[in-house]
Amino acid sequence: MNTSPVVAVIAVDCSTTAVKALVTASDGAVLASASSPLQTRSPAPGRAEQDARSWWTALDEAVRAALQSLPDRGVVRALCISHQRESFVCLDEAGEPLAPAMLWLDGRAAEQVARDGSEHVERLCGKPADITPGLYKLAWLRDHAPDVLDRAHHVVDVQGYLVQRLTGRWVTSTASMDPLALLDVETKDYHPDLLRIAGVRRDQLPDLAPVGADLGELLPVVRQAWGLAAGTVVVAGLGDGQAAGLGVGVTEPGDAYLVMGTAVVIGAQHEEYRPSRAYRTMVSAFAGQRTLETFSSSGTFLSTWFRREFGEAGADGRPDPELEAAAAAVPVGSEGLLTLPHWNATQTPHWDALSSGAVLGWRGFHTRAHMYRSLLEGIAFELRTQLDGLEEATGRPVRSIRAIGGGMRSPLWGQILADVLGRRLHKRADGEISALGAAVVALTTLGEHPDLATASHALTSFEDVVEPLPENVQRYEALLPLYKSLYPTLRDVLHALHV
Amino acid sequence: MNTSPVVAVIAVDCSTTAVKALVTASDGAVLASASSPLQTRSPAPGRAEQDARSWWTALDEAVRAALQSLPDRGVVRALCISHQRESFVCLDEAGEPLAPAMLWLDGRAAEQVARDGSEHVERLCGKPADITPGLYKLAWLRDHAPDVLDRAHHVVDVQGYLVQRLTGRWVTSTASMDPLALLDVETKDYHPDLLRIAGVRRDQLPDLAPVGADLGELLPVVRQAWGLAAGTVVVAGLGDGQAAGLGVGVTEPGDAYLVMGTAVVIGAQHEEYRPSRAYRTMVSAFAGQRTLETFSSSGTFLSTWFRREFGEAGADGRPDPELEAAAAAVPVGSEGLLTLPHWNATQTPHWDALSSGAVLGWRGFHTRAHMYRSLLEGIAFELRTQLDGLEEATGRPVRSIRAIGGGMRSPLWGQILADVLGRRLHKRADGEISALGAAVVALTTLGEHPDLATASHALTSFEDVVEPLPENVQRYEALLPLYKSLYPTLRDVLHALHV
Repeated sequence: MNTSPVVAVIAVDCSTTAVKALVTASDGAVLASASSPLQTRSPAPGRAEQDARSWWTALDEAVRAALQSLPDRGVVRALCISHQRESFVCLDEAGEPLAPAMLWLDGRAAEQVARDGSEHVERLCGKPADITPGLYKLAWLRDHAPDVLDRAHHVVDVQGYLVQRLTGRWVTSTASMDPLALLDVETKDYHPDLLRIAGVRRDQLPDLAPVGADLGELLPVVRQAWGLAAGTVVVAGLGDGQAAGLGVGVTEPGDAYLVMGTAVVIGAQHEEYRPSRAYRTMVSAFAGQRTLETFSSSGTFLSTWFRREFGEAGADGRPDPELEAAAAAVPVGSEGLLTLPHWNATQTPHWDALSSGAVLGWRGFHTRAHMYRSLLEGIAFELRTQLDGLEEATGRPVRSIRAIGGGMRSPLWGQILADVLGRRLHKRADGEISALGAAVVALTTLGEHPDLATASHALTSFEDVVEPLPENVQRYEALLPLYKSLYPTLRDVLHALHV
Repeated sequence: MNTSPVVAVIAVDCSTTAVKALVTASDGAVLASASSPLQTRSPAPGRAEQDARSWWTALDEAVRAALQSLPDRGVVRALCISHQRESFVCLDEAGEPLAPAMLWLDGRAAEQVARDGSEHVERLCGKPADITPGLYKLAWLRDHAPDVLDRAHHVVDVQGYLVQRLTGRWVTSTASMDPLALLDVETKDYHPDLLRIAGVRRDQLPDLAPVGADLGELLPVVRQAWGLAAGTVVVAGLGDGQAAGLGVGVTEPGDAYLVMGTAVVIGAQHEEYRPSRAYRTMVSAFAGQRTLETFSSSGTFLSTWFRREFGEAGADGRPDPELEAAAAAVPVGSEGLLTLPHWNATQTPHWDALSSGAVLGWRGFHTRAHMYRSLLEGIAFELRTQLDGLEEATGRPVRSIRAIGGGMRSPLWGQILADVLGRRLHKRADGEISALGAAVVALTTLGEHPDLATASHALTSFEDVVEPLPENVQRYEALLPLYKSLYPTLRDVLHALHV
């Protein structure tokens, strides 16, 4: 590892809520950081849109602010982007948006999912049919606003948009385009069958480069505005999910990362492509590997929802130490209260947009704390079901789990997860993990580390370990078959209630 | 009706929580009233006991306090008792308790219910096997404390205990003894098969008299202590459920009363005995009729529980106008949230001690107010199911419903009930309805009214009417089949959760 003179990169994470910029040195030290918020609009129920231009203005603002506090800008050699996935925008010849960007969580394409989400499509793109992939959102545009697609000179993902502003080139990474489900996940190239369903032509889409490719130097106007040295390059980044895997040191099969955010994701690396509804298959940062991910949209969404609706007036969902303590005092299994956490429908492995949540087993002695604990346990059971499915479909056991995200700030939830998953958890609640993953990529491309895996381990620290408690593991194991029976038992009732 | 000079009676309701005494004139005017609280002890989970001596001391205190504010005690000609049902006590030769009285809600006899609750027993006593009837509690005593039964000279219900203190005689009414399930509900006499299961002998039990019988004069010591005239008699009363029917003017088949208390009851009169698990059959105050009752132990228990657990800290379950308004603003059907209200297991018609509650259909936009409304709707659906079962089993439609009890203080709940039951409700939230029923009995026995039905209608007023709203009725009708499918669908899961 080259430590002198200092070499640093600008790692940018353009998430759904903000653009964060970290200036990171070769050894992982964060020399400077700043962030700038993004606004999401919902012009109708279920829709979620952003002005793509704000991706750039927020990036510009965050980078300038970070550099402001950096003593010597001469150390910066590269910039690399991680970003919200599946989101895209249609642009005219001059690169101006023809319509607001449609975000990953935009739910308007349910009809297109049902119509176009065939087994052939799922197998080609490696993603179970769901409202998330960009493919179905593009098909919605083709049905409802065909002129936007007809007039578009460029249809780009978040990295594609930002790289053009940074370098003048229309190019993105295979890992960044992949979530739109326009690529054959095996060849990592656009597939005509998928383009036909989406209603876009290949010439409208950006060029593709592998993760870590040198995409060229910053435009002089940008470089000069930021006061950076000539020769500062943009390195091809990747989506925030795969970036998080790099940011936590999950670099080879058998390890997994668990993102306990608003939504929850379990991710793992695997050598071969095995189509399955037990996960979605993503282009990996590692050549010769695939990133497999389970997905559930009820994560800290649900614990925050509970605290907002049933917590102290005015606390508005903030963490509540008293509630946490009361829930910790409730025995394992919440004394017979069991929760199916499908508040935002269900994704892996059922992919059922008409499912909803349920709390069963209510008795007169139950308290508010019982319900809260049962919600946390329900999400853990859902993750366990997904982990079991992942192991079964790949035929490979998951040895260790590195857990990150806001949900890991709760020691109670961390213990419940270790006990229900029956595995040791390495956890880390804070830190810009996705941006860290982008820094891993850029520093490797610069030659500061020999390869991605070495860089990832060098920049990652996970000191906080949660051990499963054997007695609790046993009790949760006993409840697991009952939990797994809930969805099949309740499906018809929940569908009938979905008005 | 004789209105001059004034004739009055002391109507006593010895409920679970207090003894209330009303001095009531022939026309129903309450001339004086007072109450004295009763303490319930729970020495172990599920147990509920009282000191039978407190029934008497509280009655004495309440009557003295009521008489204190009465200008002329000379108007009082009789005393009549209504009371908590199923509760009983074992006494020695001197009338002193050998053990605490076991209350109706005491749940310790589950094993005896399962063992002894045969079809033969249910048919004889007219009551589905359940922890409530005294029969199974006596069987528990025979199993666990046989010496108490062996040493008992007297095994008496609440009226039996109090009448002995008032008159020196060991006698109660058939309607008061009936809830213990020791009587053949057809002959209204003790049945040897039931006595054998209970492990009691006929000579240990009080004599039986019909409702309204003259049980004799007050003992001189009592009469003098209270300052009443010679010739003041005790008239045979009845349990609080049947008394409530008289107190609200439900005197003939086709009418029903609905008691929205901690537990909820629908009661109706019927001419013939038709054994069914759709109701329990009770000895009626009216010769030639039976009182049929459905029963559910989740009534205002559940709305109070919700406000205590999920309401403002410190409010401790008190009515909450803001929550009521928010729940009223939620559309009919709680936007897809549906509740099975079996928090305290389920009684009519499933009689399943291992059932529990469930809330299904949770989605991200639901609020605290949705859950509250859904609980109120769930109890209404449960009552509708019971009403449908009652009509089907008797073959007679229920034309009108008179609703009383604390639950009727909520205008929202009143409207939900009218809409789900699909019938006009005559409602009355306050007033001592059971005591009023005892007054109806006593005044009829005194000849102040020609018969019970006439007295009941003369003393009853129901000015507050809730009309069902046709649009809401239609929406709830559409949800009813789904509600009725919940219990069969969930039964196995709920049993598995009952730890």
